[in-house]
Parts: sequence; C-alpha cells; structure tokens
Amino acid sequence: MSTVAVIGAGAVGSYYGARLAQAGHDVRFLMRRDFDAVAARGLRVRSKDGDFALDRPAIARRPEAIGPVDWVICALKATAIEEARALVAPCVADRTRVLVLMNGLGLEERFAEWFGPARVFGGLAFTCINRGEPGEVHHLDYGPVTIGHLEDDPGALAAAATLWEGAAVEVTTSPSLLAARWQKLCWNIPFNGLAVTAGGITTDRILADPGLRAAAAATIGEVATAGNADLAAHGERARLDPTGVTAAMIAATDAMAVYRPSTMIDFVEGRATEVDAIFGEPLRRAEALGVAVPHIALLTALVRSLDAQRPSRRD
Amino acid sequence: MSTVAVIGAGAVGSYYGARLAQAGHDVRFLMRRDFDAVAARGLRVRSKDGDFALDRPAIARRPEAIGPVDWVICALKATAIEEARALVAPCVADRTRVLVLMNGLGLEERFAEWFGPARVFGGLAFTCINRGEPGEVHHLDYGPVTIGHLEDDPGALAAAATLWEGAAVEVTTSPSLLAARWQKLCWNIPFNGLAVTAGGITTDRILADPGLRAAAAATIGEVATAGNADLAAHGERARLDPTGVTAAMIAATDAMAVYRPSTMIDFVEGRATEVDAIFGEPLRRAEALGVAVPHIALLTALVRSLDAQRPSRRD
Repeated sequence: MSTVAVIGAGAVGSYYGARLAQAGHDVRFLMRRDFDAVAARGLRVRSKDGDFALDRPAIARRPEAIGPVDWVICALKATAIEEARALVAPCVADRTRVLVLMNGLGLEERFAEWFGPARVFGGLAFTCINRGEPGEVHHLDYGPVTIGHLEDDPGALAAAATLWEGAAVEVTTSPSLLAARWQKLCWNIPFNGLAVTAGGITTDRILADPGLRAAAAATIGEVATAGNADLAAHGERARLDPTGVTAAMIAATDAMAVYRPSTMIDFVEGRATEVDAIFGEPLRRAEALGVAVPHIALLTALVRSLDAQRPSRRD
Repeated sequence: MSTVAVIGAGAVGSYYGARLAQAGHDVRFLMRRDFDAVAARGLRVRSKDGDFALDRPAIARRPEAIGPVDWVICALKATAIEEARALVAPCVADRTRVLVLMNGLGLEERFAEWFGPARVFGGLAFTCINRGEPGEVHHLDYGPVTIGHLEDDPGALAAAATLWEGAAVEVTTSPSLLAARWQKLCWNIPFNGLAVTAGGITTDRILADPGLRAAAAATIGEVATAGNADLAAHGERARLDPTGVTAAMIAATDAMAVYRPSTMIDFVEGRATEVDAIFGEPLRRAEALGVAVPHIALLTALVRSLDAQRPSRRD
C-alpha cells in the first residue's frame, strides 16, 4: 500500500485517485470546491464500468494537512501550473514521486526544476470524465493512462506501474515520455483546435466536413513531424510515423462518435483554456527548430485570440 | 455620354453608378430594396469626398425596363452569381460591354460563357462603402477601382478607361485581369478569413495580435504563390512578388486603422458570405495545381463550417 496525494481533485484527479483508493491505497485528496460535499456524503463515481463510492475519503483543504506521501498525483489544469509548486511541495519528501497527470507539453520540466527530475513522471489520460454535482464525477468513456518517466528510467517506470497494480485502470508505460506527449498532442492540437475555431463543434462534425477533416489530417502530420524534430533535439531515439499516426488518429476518432474535446468544453463553458500547454509550447518548440507548422500556428493564433475575447473564469 | 445599367444597386453599385451619373452618363439602376425610397427622394451619397445626390435617377425594378445599354456594371454579391445571367441579359446588345464589379475569382468566366469573352471586364473596387437608410449609401473611405479585360485586350481596356473620364473615381487599368484578381485575393483571403474565424474582429485587431499578424502574412504569401501558379497555367506572363506583396498588404492594412472586411460584415450581420468566390475558387485552383496552401485551406474550411452553422439570409 502506498500513500498518495491527489493535488487538483477535479474530475480527472478524483476519478483516478478513487480508483487507487478502491485498490487499497491510502489516498488523500486536496479539495476546494467539493470539500464540503465530500465531507458530508463521500466521493461518488458514476462510471461506464460500474458505479462506486468512497464513503469517507481522506480529504484536505490545504496540502500541509496531507503532508509527505509516496506518490503525488498532480491533476491540476495546465492553466494552474504557476500554483502547482506551492500546492505540491508540502507533500514531497525524499521518497516521493510525482505523477504529472496534466495536458500539454513542458509541464514535467517545471516539476523537475522544483523537485528534481528523478522523481518526476508524466501521465496521459485517455478518457472522458466530467464533474457532476459536488462530490460526484462521471466517467463517461475510455480510461487508459500512459505513464512515462521524465528521464525515461526503466526502473522508475516499473515502480510507477507497480502503484497501479490491482487498480481498475489500464496503465501502459512508455519508454519515451516525450514521444508519448507528442503522440497525444497529435490528437489534442487538431481536434481541440478545430472544435473551438469551427464554432464549438464535436469531433464527429469535424470529421463529417471534408474541409475540416482534411485540416485535421494535415495538422496531425504537422504535429508528428514537429514532435520528431523535438525528439531528435532531445537526443531521443523514439520517432512518430506521421502517416501512420494520422491514419490511426482519424480512424480512432471516427470510431468515437460524438466527443467534446476538453479545450472546446472549457471554451464554451467560459473557463480558461489550456492553450499554452496544448498549443503554445509545441508551437514554440516547432518554430525554434525551424519546422514548418502552418496549421498549428494558425490554430494557436485563433484559439488564443478567441480565448482573449471572452471573460474567462478559473475554477 | 454612354448609357449604363447598374445591375445590383447595393452600396457598391449605387455609389459607382452615381459617380458616373454625376459625370453626365445616362445611368439606369436596377433596384429592389431601395426602389420606393429612391423614387420618392432620389439617391443620396454621403461621401468622405463630399456628399451629393441624384434627385431623379433612372431606376427600374426589372432589367427589361432598362433595355440594351453601352455598359452594364454588374455589382451583385458573388452569392447571387446564378441570378446574374437573367438580370444582365436584357441589357446586352452587340455593342454592350459588361463590367463585373464583384468580389472573387472566376466570375468573369461565367459572364464570358453567357455573353462571349470580348465584352467582359472585371472591376476591383478598393473601397469601404455601406448601405445607409434606403436610398442612401455611405462612402466611408478609399474608392479606387482597377479594371481589367478578360482577354487582356489593350484596346478594350482603353475604352473602359474612357467611360470613367470625368468621373470622380480613381480608375486604373491592369494589363492582366487575372493578376489583379489574385492581387486583391492577397488581401481578401487573409483579412476576411481571419476577421471571421478570430471571432468577428477588425483588421487593426488582427494586426495587433502577433500570432494573427504572422498568420495574415503567411497567408498573403500563399495566395501570391498560388496566383503565380494560376497565372502560369493560364499562359500569362504577369507574376506577383510574394515577399513584396506581403510587405505591401501588411503595411497598407496597418495604415487603415479600424476596418471591417466584407465577409466579416456579412457574417456578423447574418448574410450569406462570398465564401465560394473569395475562398473556394482560389483554393480549388491552388489544389488542382498542386500548390501547398495550408492557410487558405484551413481558413476556407473554417469559414465554410461557421457559415453553414448559422441561419443566413440573402438580400
């Protein structure tokens, strides 16, 4: 059994933390909005794989009340990255490992600056989870998590996989965290970007429109190519196959039916979008490496502009 | 003195027709929305160069009531191209020349199919003119017109220039109509496209945003490159200089202060946009010629998708 701190108990953090608690780990949730509801009625998960609840989970309003643990799972929105250090630090001791379960590129590097790279892992959740009423999360579809280690240390990766043994989560480890991050961006940039800029539409409508479908495919290829340049610049051997990734992402999304990408949900619901982590940092790296990325650049500029024009709230 | 029929007496047709009438030509306006107002009170022009009015202009509700003329100026919206033949034909005799004063690519070719190419000219209005109250147009800024001949016949071009002598319009003839059309698209595609997709914003805001500014510049270069391929495919010697055109268009637009591109106005006011003529046909030609035009393709797909999502009215 490990002690686990979930920092950022929104939908994703609550769901995966609950799965670890269900498997017997001592999971402590840092909660803001939902603290009172969970204190009163527990944490309830409505899942496509069967509902379950934690009747009396360990919850805290401040990270100091959690203290040092074996694993920190940081599931804050990428927009809250500047708050992450102060929220995570009280839970970090020598033994502590940190799993950055957030969207976007370059976030693990921030944790490495703060806490040293050896303890830093990245988690990529392929899932559709929404918040419901306070104290309730809805796990609508999917659920696998890919985990990589910032230094791609196989021993560290094995330890990370061990944490999830027995939990009802399909966990895969990736020998290259950076390749895994870029692979996920191959989906997030085109589909989040087009869903927002084409007016707040779902993925099925993107793929049903020949012009948007072609734009999605071209964008995926660009992201893969930029990713390969970034992997090479980092001295990594892993590469993405732009043609293969494009075909796979389009086929997978065709099979997904009606899906609302997270940036689109944030956008239409008036929340800050993760534009810097999902778009800005990949674009910055591609441009620094001299890779032509017209689709990424245009989508980034449009999402940023649209984002800046509306009043956004952070929650 | 020439007889002139203005088909499509919206803001642009009314303004330039009024300028020809002011210069002494016998101008007859086909009017729909504004017929009663103009019959009662005349056609009034509020212009940055001084207001003026035609107290009793010749107006008609049907083109048959105008009959054959020396010059037809067709100033319909590009969205009305399928109606143009029936509206223009009653005004065409052997001697008649047709000036297509419309936005977009490929429209003159349609008139050539209907009436033969020798009589077909294209007019490119660089201006900002809005409709006001019925019977009134507002000439806010600019005003030059570039005229080309579909077959680039110098003698025909000279005749076209003669019509405008004495009128308070700065008219330039272009030795290549196709080059002039592409040159105008170098502005229309990026600025109409970004103004719509970035949320209905004015040109000053596009240029104040570093990402959108870079996207505008890159799009201009793409349009110029596509235009050069199209010019070559048509056996024309004229070429655009992508770098020079980009710098010139950005500088000119920087100098324009707050400007609402026409597609953006159509879009935010719920009218059909000229997406096929301004975006669709240039994109089709570029793709047929194998020119890489990611910005044009993405902007076209987004404008089309946004366009299709709102109820639009034609007027």
